[in-house]
Amino acid sequence: MAIKEGIRTGGRSARVQASVHAAVRELLKEQDRASLTVPQIAARAGVTPSTIYRRWGELAALLADVAVERVLPDVAPLDTGELRADLRAWTEQYLDEITSEPGRNLMRDVLSSACPGYCTNILRGQLQVILDRAQARGEALPDIERLLDLLVAPTVYRTLFAEAPPTLEQLYSLLDLALPGQDPATLCHCDHRRR
Amino acid sequence: MAIKEGIRTGGRSARVQASVHAAVRELLKEQDRASLTVPQIAARAGVTPSTIYRRWGELAALLADVAVERVLPDVAPLDTGELRADLRAWTEQYLDEITSEPGRNLMRDVLSSACPGYCTNILRGQLQVILDRAQARGEALPDIERLLDLLVAPTVYRTLFAEAPPTLEQLYSLLDLALPGQDPATLCHCDHRRR
Repeated sequence: MAIKEGIRTGGRSARVQASVHAAVRELLKEQDRASLTVPQIAARAGVTPSTIYRRWGELAALLADVAVERVLPDVAPLDTGELRADLRAWTEQYLDEITSEPGRNLMRDVLSSACPGYCTNILRGQLQVILDRAQARGEALPDIERLLDLLVAPTVYRTLFAEAPPTLEQLYSLLDLALPGQDPATLCHCDHRRR
Repeated sequence: MAIKEGIRTGGRSARVQASVHAAVRELLKEQDRASLTVPQIAARAGVTPSTIYRRWGELAALLADVAVERVLPDVAPLDTGELRADLRAWTEQYLDEITSEPGRNLMRDVLSSACPGYCTNILRGQLQVILDRAQARGEALPDIERLLDLLVAPTVYRTLFAEAPPTLEQLYSLLDLALPGQDPATLCHCDHRRR
């Protein structure tokens, strides 16, 4: 599949994407999602169907892409000047997105589409922006996969499968487990606390 | 909803459940899941429809219950005599279950049924058995919600939404984060390592 990932590109490619996305959003206001077809979207967007197939591969991927753009806005993560605060801000925003009605629907769309890994890669792109900034400041970096396991996974799992989404405090406490250079008193059980 | 959770109960209640579950499994071999009705299941199981409604509340909950029993077998978790080894064995089995085809289908069933939290409570029940044993041996205990966040959430999230399920090594490493009394050298960054 030829879906672009992470930060959007500019130029003609971006104009085609904007036009196709707009066509999907318009058509979804007029008709049911199940009756939507690629030729219909192409006609509304003023592109050929093969442009859509080349770029998205299949209708489900295009629909997931439009939903992702709605839920995971393409803006740079907040820059607070400090890694932990950046990640806390990102976590708060992600929790808001996933627990919103469009967010829950997106997770269901992605689950029934043939593009697993798509959202995960967008999230990796956002987290990498935060990590790159921290690296430039000389801060110690957590593993990006560990951030997915400790921040994203509990948010998605609890929102979809448990009684309630996680609280921000639960997520912040998991974030502390992911960060190197954590105050050891809250993390470890070694002798130095008793000395 | 009147679904029983965790460890199954015995007696008449257990016989009704076994008979209704067997009826569902039989009928699913003969016909499509979408055409299944509660009166049909009741007739096959030799109970009244109101027995089913009283116990499961709705058809989706009953179907999820049958699927759960298939994927999360009602057996006591392996007792190795040590908390970490018990949790490792449980994690390995859970990863196997969730990455199986019935396991993935179960997660989709649960997602579209009206009983979120159901599987999560079964998992809590299994983990509590392991924790109770460890407590009886005098071992330090991890928080059960943290075990859900560090073992279950990454397994489900990566299996359903990422490119691939987690590896056992990834999960074991997350388990180490959850366990109290962890070797501090692998967890914390405090001075004692340099002394």
